[in-house]
Amino acid sequence: MAIPKIVILGAGYGGLITAVNLQKELNYNEAEVTLVNKHHYHYITTHLHEPAAGTASHESVKINIDSVINKEKINFRKGVVELIDTANRRVILSDGELDYDYLVIALGSEPETFGIEGLKEHAFSIRSLNSVRMIREHIEYMFSKYSYTHDDSYITLVVGGAGFTGIEFVGELADRVPKLCAQFDVPLEKVRIINIEAAPTVLPGFDQRLIDYAMKVLTEKGVEFKTNTPIKLCTPDGIVLANGEEIRAKTVVWTGGVRGNSVVEKSGFETMRGRVKVDPYLIAPGYEDVFIIGDSALVFNEEGRPYPPTAQIATQQGETCAYNLIAKIRGSAMKPFVYNYKGTLASLGKGEGIGVIGKTKLLGLTAALMKRATDLRYLFMLGGIPLVLKKGKFLP
Amino acid sequence: MAIPKIVILGAGYGGLITAVNLQKELNYNEAEVTLVNKHHYHYITTHLHEPAAGTASHESVKINIDSVINKEKINFRKGVVELIDTANRRVILSDGELDYDYLVIALGSEPETFGIEGLKEHAFSIRSLNSVRMIREHIEYMFSKYSYTHDDSYITLVVGGAGFTGIEFVGELADRVPKLCAQFDVPLEKVRIINIEAAPTVLPGFDQRLIDYAMKVLTEKGVEFKTNTPIKLCTPDGIVLANGEEIRAKTVVWTGGVRGNSVVEKSGFETMRGRVKVDPYLIAPGYEDVFIIGDSALVFNEEGRPYPPTAQIATQQGETCAYNLIAKIRGSAMKPFVYNYKGTLASLGKGEGIGVIGKTKLLGLTAALMKRATDLRYLFMLGGIPLVLKKGKFLP
Repeated sequence: MAIPKIVILGAGYGGLITAVNLQKELNYNEAEVTLVNKHHYHYITTHLHEPAAGTASHESVKINIDSVINKEKINFRKGVVELIDTANRRVILSDGELDYDYLVIALGSEPETFGIEGLKEHAFSIRSLNSVRMIREHIEYMFSKYSYTHDDSYITLVVGGAGFTGIEFVGELADRVPKLCAQFDVPLEKVRIINIEAAPTVLPGFDQRLIDYAMKVLTEKGVEFKTNTPIKLCTPDGIVLANGEEIRAKTVVWTGGVRGNSVVEKSGFETMRGRVKVDPYLIAPGYEDVFIIGDSALVFNEEGRPYPPTAQIATQQGETCAYNLIAKIRGSAMKPFVYNYKGTLASLGKGEGIGVIGKTKLLGLTAALMKRATDLRYLFMLGGIPLVLKKGKFLP
Repeated sequence: MAIPKIVILGAGYGGLITAVNLQKELNYNEAEVTLVNKHHYHYITTHLHEPAAGTASHESVKINIDSVINKEKINFRKGVVELIDTANRRVILSDGELDYDYLVIALGSEPETFGIEGLKEHAFSIRSLNSVRMIREHIEYMFSKYSYTHDDSYITLVVGGAGFTGIEFVGELADRVPKLCAQFDVPLEKVRIINIEAAPTVLPGFDQRLIDYAMKVLTEKGVEFKTNTPIKLCTPDGIVLANGEEIRAKTVVWTGGVRGNSVVEKSGFETMRGRVKVDPYLIAPGYEDVFIIGDSALVFNEEGRPYPPTAQIATQQGETCAYNLIAKIRGSAMKPFVYNYKGTLASLGKGEGIGVIGKTKLLGLTAALMKRATDLRYLFMLGGIPLVLKKGKFLP
């Protein structure tokens, strides 16, 4: 009897937790597991806004996959997924192919630009280590150009979207700007950080007291907010708002939304904004051998509304997915995915944050410290104490 | 009797040495000296190629003017010179005016692009602290973009001109590239540094054995040379050579030549490539009260050929200029400027150099060490032992 082949696409939160759990639970020769990822590293997506702003190093959010994966138990294949050929149980990579018996699609998200013209071409997005390194270097380059040209658009930073990523990013930017000003001889009062949101409020859906606190902290740090303000157009020189106002800004970062990975749609799965409504076991409808988890999976709450794609839900899906894969192989019962919402924490730059844990609302340093604690917990889940010691010290 | 007003325009090598020497020699109330400069700092121009390549910090080549000027003896005025109104003995700044009895024009140079199309718009030049900071940040930004796009033009670096600045710059770039590759996950073998020179050889006029040594050292470090190769056109995406060849390169740095400051020409002085042929006392022809020194002054050697503009000649002119200003004030005899050529040293990156001192030719580490010694000597001339201790440690 052949050993079943499990292929996991993507080493983000969902894929990596699936792999780590399989590695723990599977017995010798029970399955051949291959983890495919574009890079040889995993990154802590929930912290990408820090290297993007330049307040943390690139290395601090990067975890080499071979530091958490035991290569005697799991094959690692560096590669870019181009298409999934479900009819032939095959994954097409840009430089090869892989057969599978069971597939886990954990390919993450892509920016959703809602058809706003020029955004895809001219705005940056916080989506990978390479993309945030580019943002950081771009901002520094623009500051250096300001000293040469004295054109204010080089030191005007527009962040589109005031959800979690947008809010956390402007918090980090506000912390970084005084240092950039010192480094590049730029007058601090000339720099503008403008956070633009189409919805009537920042952090839509969040507790009003926490929203007020976040806006107060960030406004004091120098962030300007424009809510109820859709963006109409993005150009290399800035943006035009729906109300006709033009903002000249050489740096525009879009954090306004994500959609599922386009590979999923291209491979023939039925999607909504690129996401697949999976069954209670996280299996794609119409299949028995394809799990979809993380940002490309659509799961609904009891009121019938989709859960937003977060690291928290992806991690929990990774645990359920690994459990169900083992159940399939062993012929035992799978378990349905039940989301255990533990709360939400957002940082607002150094030493400041807001959050909800259960019914408790947190703000200020407490929230910042809790965020740090959950970061450490994630590192522990991934790689135990050694990884906590290695990476924990970098986290702010 | 009114105290004569001396105004010095520019705090480069010539202007700053003039000011330092006046400060040393002038008695109380013998003259009112004002030094005008665009920035509050002087920079060591002969080392600008290092922060441009990123091998040294911006700070290492920056000397705050108030660390060498005694403000009780010399007024410092931060300002940009727009025009010299010799008829009314007046200097027009962008934000004011200054009257003078004696004027020293030491405004430095501007890049000479020899009419090559697009060079002014799309090529960088190594001319000021702000300009080299921009080069450094640009290169880093381009490396970060390569990791995102895998387009080779982002990691192709073209340096136009293989005179001293060009050669020293490619030497530093070659030292920096391996570090950039590590930082931005770029394969080293993909990076190209191409040095292009219209003349038949690099370092035209230099000793052939030293030229051969320089090319050998730099070629081993990975620099490609194209001599006998004029550039026809520069675009945002690269250059086109006179032979029609196109090189796609997002970074083009022009070091091919300099001309005198355009303010001199605009102010009605007769110039050749922006430089004024001064009399033996460094006075502009037709004037008694205007000295011109440094890159905007044209001085001829015994064979009737102009000396190239260097830090060495500017520094010596500053000494003579200060002497002659004091002679004017005291009614004593001025002395003609005699250039005392002490030799030439060029670095080729870390621990490597070439040079001529008297009839002695130097290469390798000896030349590199001698260059360091002359750097320290300059710091000593400017600010004595304290400045040597403060800045000397930064110099490579």
